[in-house]
Amino acid sequence: MAQLLLLPHEEFETRLAKVRKAMADSGADAMLVTDNANIYYLTGRVFTGYIYLPAQGEVIFFVRRPVGLTGDGVVYVHKPELIAESIGMTPPATIGLELDLTPYSTVMRLSAVFPQSRVVNASPALRMARATKTAYELERIGMSGVKQERVYRRIPHLYRDGMTDLELQVEIERISRLEGCLGQFRISGDSMELFMGNVLTGDNADTPTPYDFAMGGEGLDPSLPVGSNGSIIREGNAVMVDVNGNYTGYMTDMTRTFSVGKLPQEAVDAHRLSIEICRALAVAGTPGTEAKELFHIAEEMVKKAGLYHYFMGHRQKAGFIGHGLGIEINELPVIAPRSRDILAEGNVIALEPKFVIPHVGAVGIENTYHVTRDSGMQCLTNAPEEITDLM
Amino acid sequence: MAQLLLLPHEEFETRLAKVRKAMADSGADAMLVTDNANIYYLTGRVFTGYIYLPAQGEVIFFVRRPVGLTGDGVVYVHKPELIAESIGMTPPATIGLELDLTPYSTVMRLSAVFPQSRVVNASPALRMARATKTAYELERIGMSGVKQERVYRRIPHLYRDGMTDLELQVEIERISRLEGCLGQFRISGDSMELFMGNVLTGDNADTPTPYDFAMGGEGLDPSLPVGSNGSIIREGNAVMVDVNGNYTGYMTDMTRTFSVGKLPQEAVDAHRLSIEICRALAVAGTPGTEAKELFHIAEEMVKKAGLYHYFMGHRQKAGFIGHGLGIEINELPVIAPRSRDILAEGNVIALEPKFVIPHVGAVGIENTYHVTRDSGMQCLTNAPEEITDLM
Repeated sequence: MAQLLLLPHEEFETRLAKVRKAMADSGADAMLVTDNANIYYLTGRVFTGYIYLPAQGEVIFFVRRPVGLTGDGVVYVHKPELIAESIGMTPPATIGLELDLTPYSTVMRLSAVFPQSRVVNASPALRMARATKTAYELERIGMSGVKQERVYRRIPHLYRDGMTDLELQVEIERISRLEGCLGQFRISGDSMELFMGNVLTGDNADTPTPYDFAMGGEGLDPSLPVGSNGSIIREGNAVMVDVNGNYTGYMTDMTRTFSVGKLPQEAVDAHRLSIEICRALAVAGTPGTEAKELFHIAEEMVKKAGLYHYFMGHRQKAGFIGHGLGIEINELPVIAPRSRDILAEGNVIALEPKFVIPHVGAVGIENTYHVTRDSGMQCLTNAPEEITDLM
Repeated sequence: MAQLLLLPHEEFETRLAKVRKAMADSGADAMLVTDNANIYYLTGRVFTGYIYLPAQGEVIFFVRRPVGLTGDGVVYVHKPELIAESIGMTPPATIGLELDLTPYSTVMRLSAVFPQSRVVNASPALRMARATKTAYELERIGMSGVKQERVYRRIPHLYRDGMTDLELQVEIERISRLEGCLGQFRISGDSMELFMGNVLTGDNADTPTPYDFAMGGEGLDPSLPVGSNGSIIREGNAVMVDVNGNYTGYMTDMTRTFSVGKLPQEAVDAHRLSIEICRALAVAGTPGTEAKELFHIAEEMVKKAGLYHYFMGHRQKAGFIGHGLGIEINELPVIAPRSRDILAEGNVIALEPKFVIPHVGAVGIENTYHVTRDSGMQCLTNAPEEITDLM
């Protein structure tokens, strides 16, 4: 038998209070949580089942799998229909379900468990609560950053003359996994797909992707059209590495640019500008700042430098320069021109002002930052930022 | 500019006809398809957008991303609300949406695009059409099988004395990727999670997982509790390898068992029985056979051998011994005791009658089979089936 709750008790209470505070706005008297990422957030482990979380009173953990979990409020059910009857609870007037994530058919089935309750959307409250990280979460994110940095520092040693983008990526994947990388790249919703990361060089960096990532690439197959495509890394090309930083269940996101030989001045300038944008935004990104304001600062710097044509893609442009992250890669806030998000203390944000220079490749950096109360955004991914020549 | 449709024209027509035939049962006058796997099935590529598929008339491909796709019926829209107005079509009386996959909020938004249409569930028709593979699909699955076999034959060369399960897995991942494995393990729905596969040894094989996989394992972290956990591979232990076979957008699924030194007789016997079950089911699995009948044949063989206690898990048992696969790992039919599926020519099914022997590990094999018209189930994963000693 194993304790279901893997979070320290105070940490669980802190997260519960955050979710309940956000819940108050949603009008839910109770929530039934079933998404893996939200279950992990609330307990520190993934299980298959449902968390019944009332605005007041005890939380109940309805577990379908695995066998052998124990602790306060743990109830085994083999189907959701047994939830209500198994504990005979008074039905809540309104029940919050994760409507932005849960398939329609599943929502219908879960609604039927609470026939007298009005269904409201629990997704925004959970996203809101998760957007500001606790000290415990920040520690886990920081640990991922340290390990990812260790891997990135070793990348120059992996390069061999004549390698393809895929061959370099596979060696990065290998040392990442040996360093403890879980590999899994958790994304909310299933419309975005990526294997372990993105290594782009030369013309392939300018290939548009269907997915809502900052950068593209053809990929190895049209069933997964993103990332490396087997291009040989050639002299005069940039190599952008953006590989999985999930070492603890919490991710960091870091991009660094390498080159084989000297890059054209335009690429060097664009890379320098990416570093400068990150530094400017790290100062500007204080609690209370509008997310869209950060986007506009970056955009102005790029326009002033005359590099807008290459900013966030060339043939196809991404609509954002940064995103919240933690358990998933696409958390709040979103740093985009029409974002309504306001930065808050405890946000963790990846900034990735990148450029695609035709026939050269992608340049720029990405760092993961913690929004502090008084010291702007603190960088959690501290590998060297300059372009490293692999030759 | 690139052609949107990557399938040969006749192949597209064949798949379209299969979907329309299944659609007739669903009562949908048209479908709006948006799930990546279904878009890939219908076009041979993943794009972000919607396929409007009427029971009669021309298919329209509404594309959001990537830029630059062209061809008959391609229409760019930046939001779904523009679908109806952009072409001024007569609304269908009933519209099929993928209700088993698409989040509730998205279904609400898409329903509003067709305010006069009744919404019906398109998911079962698409699952049904995809369950029987075309010759073109079988060729792609066969190619994955050949590559996966090549990787599996090299596994004994990767082993070093004192390795952990993770270290061995990472080397298998590396040679798989270099062989062209896409890495992505596509699963319908987002409740099941796995990185690139599952390598189990010793006691870890007996750790229950939350996911609906045949085997478990603690995993490296409670955020992804399945698979290898860093156990040292010890003499007298079995090592079960079940690693990603997605080389072509279509997957094969293969498991082989290795050992370090001699295994206890009980484990050897259970492994032999797994091979025998696969052979028996490959003969019994003709078109028209009930899927549950295959389960019962296996179960009887296991009970007769007195090994039921270890069958499909020990502390926790999986509820199935086989599953359809292709683009995704969990397609139809399901080989389970209460399955209502009937085998059909063109089904592709992974059979995985496995055993967990406490303190030894998991033993048994898994093969991917094609259900033929007259010759039973033809194996597509032909690496040696006996236990290979790594010592």
